[in-house]
Amino acid sequence: MAAPAARSPLAVGLPELPPVAGVRLAAAAAGIRYKGRPDLLMAEFAPGTTVAGVFTRNQCPGAPVDWDRAALAGGRARVLVVNAGNANVFTGRAGQAACRATAACAAALVRCAPEEVFLASTGVIGEVLPHERITAALPALRSALQEDAWPAAAQAIMTTDTFPKAATRTAAIGDAEIRISGFAKGSGMIAPDMATMLCFVCTDATVPSALLQPMLARGVDRSFNRITVDSDTSTSDTVLLFATGQARHAPVGEGDEAALRGFSAALDAVLLELALQVVRDGEGATKLVRVEVTGAVSAGSAKRVALAIANSPLVKTAIAGEDANWGRIVMAVGKAGEPADRDRLAVAVGGVWMARDGSVVPGYDEAPVVAHMRGQEIEIAVALGMGSGHATIWTCDFTHGYIDINCSYRS
Amino acid sequence: MAAPAARSPLAVGLPELPPVAGVRLAAAAAGIRYKGRPDLLMAEFAPGTTVAGVFTRNQCPGAPVDWDRAALAGGRARVLVVNAGNANVFTGRAGQAACRATAACAAALVRCAPEEVFLASTGVIGEVLPHERITAALPALRSALQEDAWPAAAQAIMTTDTFPKAATRTAAIGDAEIRISGFAKGSGMIAPDMATMLCFVCTDATVPSALLQPMLARGVDRSFNRITVDSDTSTSDTVLLFATGQARHAPVGEGDEAALRGFSAALDAVLLELALQVVRDGEGATKLVRVEVTGAVSAGSAKRVALAIANSPLVKTAIAGEDANWGRIVMAVGKAGEPADRDRLAVAVGGVWMARDGSVVPGYDEAPVVAHMRGQEIEIAVALGMGSGHATIWTCDFTHGYIDINCSYRS
Repeated sequence: MAAPAARSPLAVGLPELPPVAGVRLAAAAAGIRYKGRPDLLMAEFAPGTTVAGVFTRNQCPGAPVDWDRAALAGGRARVLVVNAGNANVFTGRAGQAACRATAACAAALVRCAPEEVFLASTGVIGEVLPHERITAALPALRSALQEDAWPAAAQAIMTTDTFPKAATRTAAIGDAEIRISGFAKGSGMIAPDMATMLCFVCTDATVPSALLQPMLARGVDRSFNRITVDSDTSTSDTVLLFATGQARHAPVGEGDEAALRGFSAALDAVLLELALQVVRDGEGATKLVRVEVTGAVSAGSAKRVALAIANSPLVKTAIAGEDANWGRIVMAVGKAGEPADRDRLAVAVGGVWMARDGSVVPGYDEAPVVAHMRGQEIEIAVALGMGSGHATIWTCDFTHGYIDINCSYRS
Repeated sequence: MAAPAARSPLAVGLPELPPVAGVRLAAAAAGIRYKGRPDLLMAEFAPGTTVAGVFTRNQCPGAPVDWDRAALAGGRARVLVVNAGNANVFTGRAGQAACRATAACAAALVRCAPEEVFLASTGVIGEVLPHERITAALPALRSALQEDAWPAAAQAIMTTDTFPKAATRTAAIGDAEIRISGFAKGSGMIAPDMATMLCFVCTDATVPSALLQPMLARGVDRSFNRITVDSDTSTSDTVLLFATGQARHAPVGEGDEAALRGFSAALDAVLLELALQVVRDGEGATKLVRVEVTGAVSAGSAKRVALAIANSPLVKTAIAGEDANWGRIVMAVGKAGEPADRDRLAVAVGGVWMARDGSVVPGYDEAPVVAHMRGQEIEIAVALGMGSGHATIWTCDFTHGYIDINCSYRS
């Protein structure tokens, strides 16, 4: 492995992470690829825990994604096992066997069905996962499970990440206070859909998986599907939401969605905070960039235009160079292929409209924009003047750091 | 401007460029943006010259693209005026006025209609083109026109290019030997469709514009629409083909396409040679990469998969790092969203099949692949095993040089 990259200048610290009733975690160094650092996570959930999941749309998913998709049909979860360093992707029958063996071992330890075990792997593609190192480590991990091991869990799943990522919120269901906590990893190979490699969220709420799944899907669409680092889509992207049912509130069934409004909003907030942390740790990132497109013919069109801007290497290198090069933004709008009229287009950076109605704004003063570009958080706004569709996408700049990290990942 | 980048390690020299009967060229330093280097090109064509053109599909095209599209309806050309340093894009009414003034001036000098004047501009976006510097320079340029000024013409249209680009072929129409010569510029903001910023091809053949246009469109589809440097699509991409009719051969009309078979093949060869020179000058490029996809469900599907590989920052940085990271190739196949079956997929680099049927090839020996990756021309082959669609795309690697050039372009 290359020397670890320096901590991202956009890094944020871990929040305080109180226990979530019904969730215990532990991490260990299993030596899967890394030496001398935790690379294996186990979480155990109380009996009755429900689960929802959203996965990569990459056509070449890893074996753990196949496993989880099948397991999700049962709607129940008791264990999560995650390893870093090897993605168990493009590993054929050996990859499937690794999943079966890991799930069987965890299920025997916890005394549940293998279909209640969820798996995720992240790291190098195409190398057979040495699952015997995982199964050898699981018994001791199970003995070590603790309510407060959230920081260790967030650390254990990192690969090229330069800081651990977690977020937590509370919400009310009826009179009960519910907690929602999650952690995520992701730095490169980040693009919709989906945008993180791995994200795990736990709550003590009691929510049937049939209600949990649409809430998670919508929350992911508003968070992880709105970020891009390098336009590349991982083969392993996984978001799982576990609801342990340990909080004391009146049962919530279909038709009771109103009771879950606060819960759903808090879930959205956790997911968005985690997604933005992933962008903040984008490989080589020095600036967090918000691209807001308004006036498109539809929300989908706005999203595609925003993504064309956010994925443009020329826009992203200009931002790295602190250059408010709105010509490249115009180029990216045009390349999206969405309905747009050059002569109605307006572009702003840092709230200053630089171009409008097809040419530069008369008397445009670059000074405040130059000052904005020197900051860490960059705001690009594009108004298309075609309709009322709008969308926001977050990305980061494109720097020498990205090249450094990705030229040498395997060496 | 940043200091000019060093000459690309993939650069090729200019070929010998004999005159094309009916074409005279001249270049001059008009001080449009650059100081002390030629930045303005004029070419004059014999009366009766026919013309065909293919332009960017970017929705925010420059004013010269609008001008040429309209002028093309007449099918006749007498003058070409090209400037470097300012793209005349997103310049509103001022940009249209600059085109009208330039065309009027050139038309008056040559005594033709303004609609027989073709224009192209390349360089910075969003700054008003100082067209008075162009019109001031045109009279002297016209006096300086020469049959053999091809190298000067290829030089004058360069922006971030590190070497001038030209190609020439001969072909027979009946008993007559026809010459086809072209020159191009392009280095960044290169992606289908189209892939070069500017390319001009001249021939002494006599071909009605109605026949010229489909030949050019097909040739561009097989060349400039098969290359990508950074996935960004210029607002100014222009390919123009001028046929002066000075060669002595029997008239060719509709229905006589067979007589043009050799001509069409030579045109394709000129276009492909120019397109590959553009990739060889891709910003920061150190390796020329050929991506061949076979076994797709259709040719279009194969092209989309090949482009997903060729545009993937993770694949391109791995190539820069001389890392035969086939896992990233698998990822890129999957992200294309085209029909593919992970378990039928095969990947080769340098002719060595590394992965097949969903996992690494047993006994795979990395040594010959490592040696191949150290070379300047890299070959990636992907077999999807789904059908008979195939496509080839050329690209370059993604290096620190790209970041250097694009972080500082305007500063």
